[in-house]
Amino acid sequence: MPNPTAAMLVIGDEILSGRTRDSNMHHLAQAFTRHGIDLKEVRVVSDDRAAIVGAVQALAEAYDHVVTSGGIGPTHDDITAPCVAEAFGVAISVRDDARAILQAHYDRSGTELNEARLRMARIPDGAALIDNPVSAAPGFSLRNVHVMAGVPSVFEAMVASLLPTLTGGAPILSQTLRLMRGEGEVALPLGALAEEFSDLQFGSYPFQKDGVYGTNLVVRGTDAGRLDAAMTRLHALFPG
Amino acid sequence: MPNPTAAMLVIGDEILSGRTRDSNMHHLAQAFTRHGIDLKEVRVVSDDRAAIVGAVQALAEAYDHVVTSGGIGPTHDDITAPCVAEAFGVAISVRDDARAILQAHYDRSGTELNEARLRMARIPDGAALIDNPVSAAPGFSLRNVHVMAGVPSVFEAMVASLLPTLTGGAPILSQTLRLMRGEGEVALPLGALAEEFSDLQFGSYPFQKDGVYGTNLVVRGTDAGRLDAAMTRLHALFPG
Repeated sequence: MPNPTAAMLVIGDEILSGRTRDSNMHHLAQAFTRHGIDLKEVRVVSDDRAAIVGAVQALAEAYDHVVTSGGIGPTHDDITAPCVAEAFGVAISVRDDARAILQAHYDRSGTELNEARLRMARIPDGAALIDNPVSAAPGFSLRNVHVMAGVPSVFEAMVASLLPTLTGGAPILSQTLRLMRGEGEVALPLGALAEEFSDLQFGSYPFQKDGVYGTNLVVRGTDAGRLDAAMTRLHALFPG
Repeated sequence: MPNPTAAMLVIGDEILSGRTRDSNMHHLAQAFTRHGIDLKEVRVVSDDRAAIVGAVQALAEAYDHVVTSGGIGPTHDDITAPCVAEAFGVAISVRDDARAILQAHYDRSGTELNEARLRMARIPDGAALIDNPVSAAPGFSLRNVHVMAGVPSVFEAMVASLLPTLTGGAPILSQTLRLMRGEGEVALPLGALAEEFSDLQFGSYPFQKDGVYGTNLVVRGTDAGRLDAAMTRLHALFPG
């Protein structure tokens, strides 16, 4: 059975303007690879209602899972939760369980749960909460869309909360052969081997080090024995 | 007149598997912001024909410019150029001007321009070449799609070659007020100010430092005077 598929939707003007360098995509890609879920697509859109709603609908239709990152805080530019509700045509309102989590969190620090903070308790009808052990305000899963914070430490904690609830497939294994030859030297025999081992993925990644061209050949797949067989052939093709 | 809009398409299994951390998105976002082009969307897709063709068509239709990154090397997994040709229904073949650039480059190092390397001279009909001062193999622009390498040093050099050929708008300016208060404290007055200055974008980005919550308030726009006026009001709202 093929692994489940997933997409990620990163929401935030700060990424598209170049103010902030996204790191959540890389974290999720690695976590999903270990868990046996194939991340097939990532989209980054701005804090724009139509853009978010359209992307949620397209990705939720095309993939088994969608993870969103960003736009669930207390300020006017945090519009992800109502956009996800709109994408599925469900209502959204402050929910008692989410409010109780926030109330307990702010009580501990003697901070008021004011109107702005209460926005973070708005949960679409039918959603399940995702635990946030860092800053309390929960994420949520609505059908196959999992809505998480954009701050990396919070995003990563929410991924850790979510992953055990998702059925994974076989972890995707990889092995790398590092060659001090240019890609153009290895391309033809590599292509032939990739056709022969069509159940595996073969990638070729050039690099330059101290003025010399090199290539990392990466073989990926779920069957350790097949990976070993492919690596044996690669070592024979490119000795030294 | 509003600034031109743009999207980016990152092509590569190595990003989606978590093997490689993309840096081209951040570079392009900053370069476009300085040049007065609004980057509105980024997509990352795998080395898959249907995914690449579909994304190129959707983005080329929706935005003034599309920049692609990755998949134009000599190996079997480098399929971006034929996919872009297919997206626009034009033919692709080895072109004399691109072949001459590669021939001169490999002649200098005494390297053979073999069949694999010659793949990098395949250019869709009607495309204009983009100069690659790092490793010679050119990118190309076909209509509003600009096709570039994925290796960061080469991508960045190609962006520098491309940018002067694109009409930019007003550079997008930004100013930041760093506050040692949580987002929940500033959300309501910030939202009111954002409504009053609806020609500017107001972003709010929480951070945590030494256990204390803080917020960066960022105002962005193209009119320096309006930015100054908004910052004066922000300083009055949140003194100290």
